[in-house]
Amino acid sequence: MTATEALGQFVSESRWEEFSESLRHAGRRSLLNSIGCALGVAQSQPVEMAVRTLLPLSGADRVTVMGRSERLDVLGAAFVNAIGANLLDYDDTHLRTVIHPAAPVAPVVLALAEQRGLSGAAALHAFILGMEVACRIGNSVSPAHYARGWHITSTCGIFGAAAAASKLLGLNAEQTAHAIGIASSESAGTIENLPSAGKNVSVGNAARNGLFAALLAEQGYTAAPAALEGPLGWARAMGDVPVVEEIVRELGSRWEAGKNTYKPYPAGIVMHAVVDACLALRRDHGLQAADIAEVVVSGEQLLLDRGDRVVTGERDSRVSIHHCAAVAFLFGKAGLAEFEDATVHNPDVAAFRARTKAQLDTGSPRGAATANVRTYDGRSFSATVLHAKGSLEHPLSDREIEAKVRDSAHHGRFSGSIDDLIPAAWQIDCMPTIAPLTMLMRTG
Amino acid sequence: MTATEALGQFVSESRWEEFSESLRHAGRRSLLNSIGCALGVAQSQPVEMAVRTLLPLSGADRVTVMGRSERLDVLGAAFVNAIGANLLDYDDTHLRTVIHPAAPVAPVVLALAEQRGLSGAAALHAFILGMEVACRIGNSVSPAHYARGWHITSTCGIFGAAAAASKLLGLNAEQTAHAIGIASSESAGTIENLPSAGKNVSVGNAARNGLFAALLAEQGYTAAPAALEGPLGWARAMGDVPVVEEIVRELGSRWEAGKNTYKPYPAGIVMHAVVDACLALRRDHGLQAADIAEVVVSGEQLLLDRGDRVVTGERDSRVSIHHCAAVAFLFGKAGLAEFEDATVHNPDVAAFRARTKAQLDTGSPRGAATANVRTYDGRSFSATVLHAKGSLEHPLSDREIEAKVRDSAHHGRFSGSIDDLIPAAWQIDCMPTIAPLTMLMRTG
Repeated sequence: MTATEALGQFVSESRWEEFSESLRHAGRRSLLNSIGCALGVAQSQPVEMAVRTLLPLSGADRVTVMGRSERLDVLGAAFVNAIGANLLDYDDTHLRTVIHPAAPVAPVVLALAEQRGLSGAAALHAFILGMEVACRIGNSVSPAHYARGWHITSTCGIFGAAAAASKLLGLNAEQTAHAIGIASSESAGTIENLPSAGKNVSVGNAARNGLFAALLAEQGYTAAPAALEGPLGWARAMGDVPVVEEIVRELGSRWEAGKNTYKPYPAGIVMHAVVDACLALRRDHGLQAADIAEVVVSGEQLLLDRGDRVVTGERDSRVSIHHCAAVAFLFGKAGLAEFEDATVHNPDVAAFRARTKAQLDTGSPRGAATANVRTYDGRSFSATVLHAKGSLEHPLSDREIEAKVRDSAHHGRFSGSIDDLIPAAWQIDCMPTIAPLTMLMRTG
Repeated sequence: MTATEALGQFVSESRWEEFSESLRHAGRRSLLNSIGCALGVAQSQPVEMAVRTLLPLSGADRVTVMGRSERLDVLGAAFVNAIGANLLDYDDTHLRTVIHPAAPVAPVVLALAEQRGLSGAAALHAFILGMEVACRIGNSVSPAHYARGWHITSTCGIFGAAAAASKLLGLNAEQTAHAIGIASSESAGTIENLPSAGKNVSVGNAARNGLFAALLAEQGYTAAPAALEGPLGWARAMGDVPVVEEIVRELGSRWEAGKNTYKPYPAGIVMHAVVDACLALRRDHGLQAADIAEVVVSGEQLLLDRGDRVVTGERDSRVSIHHCAAVAFLFGKAGLAEFEDATVHNPDVAAFRARTKAQLDTGSPRGAATANVRTYDGRSFSATVLHAKGSLEHPLSDREIEAKVRDSAHHGRFSGSIDDLIPAAWQIDCMPTIAPLTMLMRTG
């Protein structure tokens, strides 16, 4: 049996009754976090432009676009909602692969379940299975795949979208394998395009085309049996010889979807320890930004590669060591407002960024950071964070995820009732249809 | 200026008035050949299933699906018509890259021009530009790109679709570069999936997503400046360091789109010399299939890699040395009927395949083949074909392309008037709008 076929069987035969409560709850947390992210950018330019493009192309049978009054057909809604879920770099992270698994999968699940009147449990079940498929395929080609230039959230997310949609459509093992195999001929998205709207297109297409793959498989479209791992298949064409074992080992007993993490700050995942170290120094030693002559942030090569950069706008600031240190010391927080253009161009923030240095510490583990502070009056302090807030070791609590969702909804000027939406999302798997949940996401 | 930017400028500044009549005529030949291919499969299962999938998802503003009565929005029509144009392996070939350039581009041009009421000259202009962009980008990564597992018609065809759509939408140089750059984050399709409907999906998506890239760029979506050739961009992620010079050298003075070729037989391009050699032996020596004890076909490694195989059905027969020899000797032709399942399973054909051997001749040039025949009564004959019919050296005449289109339309049970459609296609660039042409492609 090929890996594609094994995944097809796994997805089609999976039973909700066999899911543990902790796995179900991990799914609810991922879903709520993802909804919050999308609400945060519902009125933003990229979402606006995508809706404008897709509205005249949309079929008459339409579903919810998060935080907006327009509705789109399932492919269009999947595209726009996936863009929204990922746009702020505030979504979930499967740390081993750096896949953001919810963005390409949740929009597909919500769109299809809404359109076909399916239950909340069916939706949550398909969502968890989709994330699992994406992360397992990601494991099989990581880390070389990302290093070569592939935006793994897009390139592997599409398999999650195809698998989740197959489950909701009730496809059998063979059809589901075909859907996953078809998705391998649609998988795309480069790192080069990450600083541009090209990123949004590949994330949106992961959802849209993954769903399309399942809809085609439902009609009878097929794929090659070894579409993923064959000699001229997806993984090798993309430059990687897949470790097929990573896809199939302990399928159904070990859950990658249960290892999802949630960001407390809308910044690059490796920046999180930087923010935490600076917040700790500020809090523990009562430091004021004006007292500080210099901050030296040290960490491993990856931190410096990503974070030691000149900041010119919002996108850069989210992956800047200097900006993360500046807002932590100046404002004592690093929320959505701290990465907006107004803050980025605030002269105090710019001056503080200039007083921040980045330094290599080859001994520092992945995900860790140390901040050393020198004050104008000659004092020195140091703080090291090994596991940032939001990591598997220090996960956000449910209440913290709720607070983040509220903050996002506020940021996105969401006109619906977030007080009703949050408890509804927690209770999704009690709903005979998910209509009550999706209705709460609409506006106007 | 990056290659992406150079292409954006080239496409947006190109003027129809500067095109030579021979280049224009090359475009008309490509277009007519492509229309014929699509008509040949309008009622086939893959087209039928794709229409069934996309019909409920289609926006209200719809355009022609070739050879059918249903209409679809421009994205859906681009998908279905591109599938149709490529399904029979009977479409055009840019020999250097083995790109089939019309399939992902012509459907986009016809769909957009029909929807927006544009002139036939604008459509033909955009079509030629799109093919040029696809082939030039293909040149920059060939032959390693295909050898690695990328279906180059899909992966490079999308750039042609994006460029052609940009031209028809009137995008400026910058927007066109963004459209091409966005397409780099949508480029997909593997060789592994070629024997399955996964192939159809990647070819269809090249048209559909290339057009989508241009529609998004029209609304303001952007891409990275070096989306194609950057260090983490399209070409390197796909495993190739592009020869950027191949993209930009002699842009506008040397035309790859003028080097397109047309197949006389619905078979793999390297099989064409095999058919011709066998037809020549049959004709020149008055040989009957029943007289022949053995055929030995020799050629270079690529011919054997592609063509020395067991035949189980229609798809295999099109790339089988043995089947091509069999139909040439048995029927004296190799048209659409000779590769249908009924012929493939004909006992005489199967027996003749078994009397045919393939043999390596390392000295044989690319595209050539030699057939050696031994008769039951002890005679031997040999024929070598260096340049097959349909090659640049022995191009199909306009009348031969017309005959092929008629044959395809008949094969596809086209109920429209092929006698009206053919002259209309030749005169496309005289039409103030292309509506008279697209109306002739519809049925019902």
